[in-house]
Amino acid sequence: MDSRFDMSKKDTIQNRFKSLQDQICNGLEQTDRHGKFLEDTWTREGGGGGRSRAFENGDVIEKGGVNFSAVFGKTPKKILAALELDESDFFATGVSIVLHPVNPWVPIVHMNVRYFEMSNGVYWFGGGIDLTPHYVIPEDARFFHKQLKDVCDKYDPLYYPKFKKWADDYFFIAHRDETRGIGGIFFDRLCGKTEEEFDHYQNFTQAVGEAFLPTYVELINRNRDKSYTNVEKAWQLIRRGRYVEFNLVYDKGTKFGLETGGRTESILMSLPPLANWKYDYRPKAGTREEQTLKWLVRGIDWLSDD
Amino acid sequence: MDSRFDMSKKDTIQNRFKSLQDQICNGLEQTDRHGKFLEDTWTREGGGGGRSRAFENGDVIEKGGVNFSAVFGKTPKKILAALELDESDFFATGVSIVLHPVNPWVPIVHMNVRYFEMSNGVYWFGGGIDLTPHYVIPEDARFFHKQLKDVCDKYDPLYYPKFKKWADDYFFIAHRDETRGIGGIFFDRLCGKTEEEFDHYQNFTQAVGEAFLPTYVELINRNRDKSYTNVEKAWQLIRRGRYVEFNLVYDKGTKFGLETGGRTESILMSLPPLANWKYDYRPKAGTREEQTLKWLVRGIDWLSDD
Repeated sequence: MDSRFDMSKKDTIQNRFKSLQDQICNGLEQTDRHGKFLEDTWTREGGGGGRSRAFENGDVIEKGGVNFSAVFGKTPKKILAALELDESDFFATGVSIVLHPVNPWVPIVHMNVRYFEMSNGVYWFGGGIDLTPHYVIPEDARFFHKQLKDVCDKYDPLYYPKFKKWADDYFFIAHRDETRGIGGIFFDRLCGKTEEEFDHYQNFTQAVGEAFLPTYVELINRNRDKSYTNVEKAWQLIRRGRYVEFNLVYDKGTKFGLETGGRTESILMSLPPLANWKYDYRPKAGTREEQTLKWLVRGIDWLSDD
Repeated sequence: MDSRFDMSKKDTIQNRFKSLQDQICNGLEQTDRHGKFLEDTWTREGGGGGRSRAFENGDVIEKGGVNFSAVFGKTPKKILAALELDESDFFATGVSIVLHPVNPWVPIVHMNVRYFEMSNGVYWFGGGIDLTPHYVIPEDARFFHKQLKDVCDKYDPLYYPKFKKWADDYFFIAHRDETRGIGGIFFDRLCGKTEEEFDHYQNFTQAVGEAFLPTYVELINRNRDKSYTNVEKAWQLIRRGRYVEFNLVYDKGTKFGLETGGRTESILMSLPPLANWKYDYRPKAGTREEQTLKWLVRGIDWLSDD
């Protein structure tokens, strides 16, 4: 086996991801002030396991999860087929987050960092952060994208434009002709041939994970005390319905996890509390709801004024 | 073109389906006493169109739809690929129903009848009725399956066991290891070589469609006036969440419709009003909720005592 993929590398990566999970859970509990994470540890029959942490009934966060897993074993046939590879062992570790806030002025957020390798030497890093405001607030959108650009720029000035476009294309609900939210960054299959490249991608992925907490806490603090009406709450439930549609119809991680026998409760932790569907609902012209829909399109450059 | 597929056959089938839609909508409005269907007619760019009828805020039915469509044109590439066929024109017509009741003691119901043909002479009939009680009531389950068996038996004694098993296998939420409800009947690709067989399948499909209204009205009337608690309402919202999971992850009609650019609002009329997801929710031992889960398995013979 290639020495780059020895146990110490895997250990390092999964330990950094575990610390990241701890850091984020502590930070979110402090920010929420009331809610707590409940931990479920689980083991996977073929090898490995995880620590799922579910948050419910907080002051700020109504429902969500911060999950860590590190699994290994024989590569599932679906992955081998997708990659056109012969039999191989795999190792995969990652942290996944989705948080659904109580207040419709606080955005839904999603973060994921992941590492995958196979015994034949193939490896890659992937991840991203994206934001789904129930109501798009342009100054918050700019702040959010600026934070992501800053992390990216430390590693490569080409990353932000490339990974921002990738997020726009990925988080798209084709049957609604809407993006899920205002995007963010999305990257996958980052890999190279040298030790330096490996370290670069590892550090970049970790840095994205570490950018999550301060960025989202700022967005919470800007909006948590805003009052909201029944109309705004009803709109939140409709946007949550769209979130469900994206995750169950398009999200590759969700579909793949369910198909390959992943832990259902951990995978579907991304689904919201109360959601609603109304037949052919269209916001009235000139409302904030209608304005939000106009912003749910691909290709908006939130940083064009900078 | 084969004379069996001349315009008059298509007209006959779609007219019978249209009448079926009218009959069912009238019957449901009378039964509900308060709610009304709102009709949207739409046309399809490639040919044909439909009449979508949405029901909202009734006394009994909280949300649902009774949709008719008849579309034709060039066969979408996805269908040709799935059937391993060369280019061809198609004609498809059907009636689709999903109804979500207010009262958790009234079951969710789904019915579909459909006819499909291609210019190369291929045709088939398909359809079915299945029931998703929030709480399984064994005598209602027996009544429901008995109604379906009676329709089937008029056409072929082998139909009920075959199509009942097909429904059990089809309406299965693999990632939950649960059936969507108590099943019913499901059939697809019914076709033959003779005029007699064509008429037989057409009449059977129509008979299934006609069995829907009296069967569901009876189930409404048995349960509409039962009182319910907050716990029962909360359980209903969780079961609705499962309904969403089935429809968006597994249902072939939904996936296919969304992928081939069908009318989104008509396809997703099947989604419930308020639904809820709770992390790793498990009903307590000995409750009606737990008993219901025990009945959400494949292969129950509801008519074994008859």
